Amino acid sequence: MKRPWKGQVEKPAEDNILRHDPTNPLCPGNQRANGEVNPEYDSTFLFDNDFPALQPDAPDPGPRDHPLFQTKAARGVCKVMCFHPWSDITLPLMELGEIQRVIDKWAELIEELGTTYPWVQIFENKGAMMGCSNPHPHCQVWASSFLPNEPDLADHFQREYLKEHGEVMLLQYAKMEAERRGSWAITQSVTHQKPVEVQNKEWFYVGSGLSRFLSCLVMFLMSFYQERVVVENDDWLVVVPYWATWPFQTLLLPLRHVLRLSDLTAKEREGLASIMKRLLTKYDNLFETSFPYSMGWHGAPTGPFLQQDMKHWQLHAHYYPPLLRSATVRKFMVGYEMLALEQRDLTPEQAAQRLRNLPEEHYKARTN
Amino acid sequence: MKRPWKGQVEKPAEDNILRHDPTNPLCPGNQRANGEVNPEYDSTFLFDNDFPALQPDAPDPGPRDHPLFQTKAARGVCKVMCFHPWSDITLPLMELGEIQRVIDKWAELIEELGTTYPWVQIFENKGAMMGCSNPHPHCQVWASSFLPNEPDLADHFQREYLKEHGEVMLLQYAKMEAERRGSWAITQSVTHQKPVEVQNKEWFYVGSGLSRFLSCLVMFLMSFYQERVVVENDDWLVVVPYWATWPFQTLLLPLRHVLRLSDLTAKEREGLASIMKRLLTKYDNLFETSFPYSMGWHGAPTGPFLQQDMKHWQLHAHYYPPLLRSATVRKFMVGYEMLALEQRDLTPEQAAQRLRNLPEEHYKARTN
Ligand SMILES: O=P(O)(O)O[C@H]1O[C@H](CO)[C@@H](O)[C@H](O)[C@H]1O
Ligand SMILES: O=P(O)(O)O[C@H]1O[C@H](CO)[C@@H](O)[C@H](O)[C@H]1O
Repeated sequence: MKRPWKGQVEKPAEDNILRHDPTNPLCPGNQRANGEVNPEYDSTFLFDNDFPALQPDAPDPGPRDHPLFQTKAARGVCKVMCFHPWSDITLPLMELGEIQRVIDKWAELIEELGTTYPWVQIFENKGAMMGCSNPHPHCQVWASSFLPNEPDLADHFQREYLKEHGEVMLLQYAKMEAERRGSWAITQSVTHQKPVEVQNKEWFYVGSGLSRFLSCLVMFLMSFYQERVVVENDDWLVVVPYWATWPFQTLLLPLRHVLRLSDLTAKEREGLASIMKRLLTKYDNLFETSFPYSMGWHGAPTGPFLQQDMKHWQLHAHYYPPLLRSATVRKFMVGYEMLALEQRDLTPEQAAQRLRNLPEEHYKARTN
Repeated sequence: MKRPWKGQVEKPAEDNILRHDPTNPLCPGNQRANGEVNPEYDSTFLFDNDFPALQPDAPDPGPRDHPLFQTKAARGVCKVMCFHPWSDITLPLMELGEIQRVIDKWAELIEELGTTYPWVQIFENKGAMMGCSNPHPHCQVWASSFLPNEPDLADHFQREYLKEHGEVMLLQYAKMEAERRGSWAITQSVTHQKPVEVQNKEWFYVGSGLSRFLSCLVMFLMSFYQERVVVENDDWLVVVPYWATWPFQTLLLPLRHVLRLSDLTAKEREGLASIMKRLLTKYDNLFETSFPYSMGWHGAPTGPFLQQDMKHWQLHAHYYPPLLRSATVRKFMVGYEMLALEQRDLTPEQAAQRLRNLPEEHYKARTN
């Protein structure tokens, strides 16, 4: 974190997006690439991607002759879902009721596409830095005829964990993280220090005497009570996971054993809207910019898997945001990370603490 | 590849880099962050990274109490190696003899650091787009007290393959790719078509009658003779691997069974310098820009592994370049790729063909 940065400087997120851009194919009433005209929608809006990566009738590559040259058929559908009729709004700035309609629609899609497809990937690429090609608030839903690599690994390791330890891995993990939060609260009140201050500055250089002693004490205690919780409520928990690789990566988990988005109760959906708004507001507040990320949902596989025992699964969402130091200096997952091992520039505990200590009022709401 | 791109547009690589920048800590005779002054080097130059991610004396985290919360000690050294005294030069523009000195130095480092460290990762991040923070031509060498994830997987699967099939996986792969090239040469001469033309354009729309028939024939034959070779010589092969994920990703392989860089003969080092220059020239010529990438070497592990049977290993280098459509439009490995599966916008065969058909004279050499 201390090395001089002469590398790439990102363009900060645009701040003057038109509420309704007549040339944007995602806005209500506008025409899309295939000639269709969008309805004057006033909530969410779902349509088929005009440039789909997966198609329902993709040809079968046929049998292959060698173990090193294997290819399999990949079929599916790609959908786009607008969150809101306005282009100049994002999830954290939407009303709770509006966010809940997005969640309801997600649950509906898992249910509908999940009747036949084994995997339904809901994901959002937010910000140009994350390859998003349209500023209108939207996510994508790609349903596939196969289990992709990441969910396949998630399935494998959750299954093994349940077999070996008799516990649902991510449920146990959520409970343990929530408890460790308890211990930390004590440390905090004992030292009367604002730990964010201690960690963001070079604590061992600044101050002296008592403040230095207290800093050391906090660091020492923190090595036992590692604290990774960012926000929580009755039904949900957000942590910077123990194994996080992206600087401000988070994991969003229900506190009850839930297999799929479609299994969430009305109260849990309400709680989800609220915790998403709080998390995303903190993200935006971190560098006072519309925080870029890729996020997505992982729940128990569907289609043929609906008939199988999937109780090793726990529903969760991953947030992978690239920013590291400011609105314009990001983390690059390159050389060593691609070829050897992902490595991070700050600890998950430092990241969690910075996020936790940020206000839950959006900086735009405050300045407007 | 056809979808409209309104997303992030990259800054093209800088073209007016000073040959000697008095403020650049990587240039000969300049002072670095730790106060040391670089010698007036005239070939390669190696020094310890002033901001190392790995340190030889990093503390041991101690035992952990739960399977979900595991941490292990990570120790090592991080070195930087300048390729050349000039800042305004890159590998493809260097003389063969100069490139060979880089290769000799790499081999020396594998040997030296490999006496104790199990893994020595040589990698180059080229271009600001790939997180490179200094335009002076250089690579990095990180040696670690453990086998990082990627080489650990490479070790595992190469070992399994040898056990199961009695063949060194990547040696067999290189030979098979080189042979398939043979078959392709026949197809090409049969059809008298320049296949690059056929593939880059929308072959099924353009032309009619004979030219359309020939295009179809080429496409049909290509489905049997998939051709992924980019460049080759007596000792080396470069392919866009069958499983490539980045648009113009390549794999550089020796055609003999070689475990480590330090095992290369003088002739093989000469051949390596030549094939690197040819590959990197093609890369630069593709979009007439200094082509960004991350590259790195994987060879048999060292340190304690020097005493073990490692013959399942085959030395290779990976090149991961991000550009997709032009010098300013890149591939983003985001949402679906991070959460589900990497997916590509053009086939490995299309990428190989485009690279293969590019001239081997550098565009800068031609225009200067
Ligand atoms: O070491 P550098 O060039 O400062 O930094 C670059 O390479 C490192 C190793 O791949 C990455 O961790 C950094 O994110 C990247 O910016
Ligand atoms: O679908 P979009 O938004 O055009 O494209 C974006 O998301 C896709 C799915 O993650 C990626 O493959 C693309 O590289 C990225 O630019």
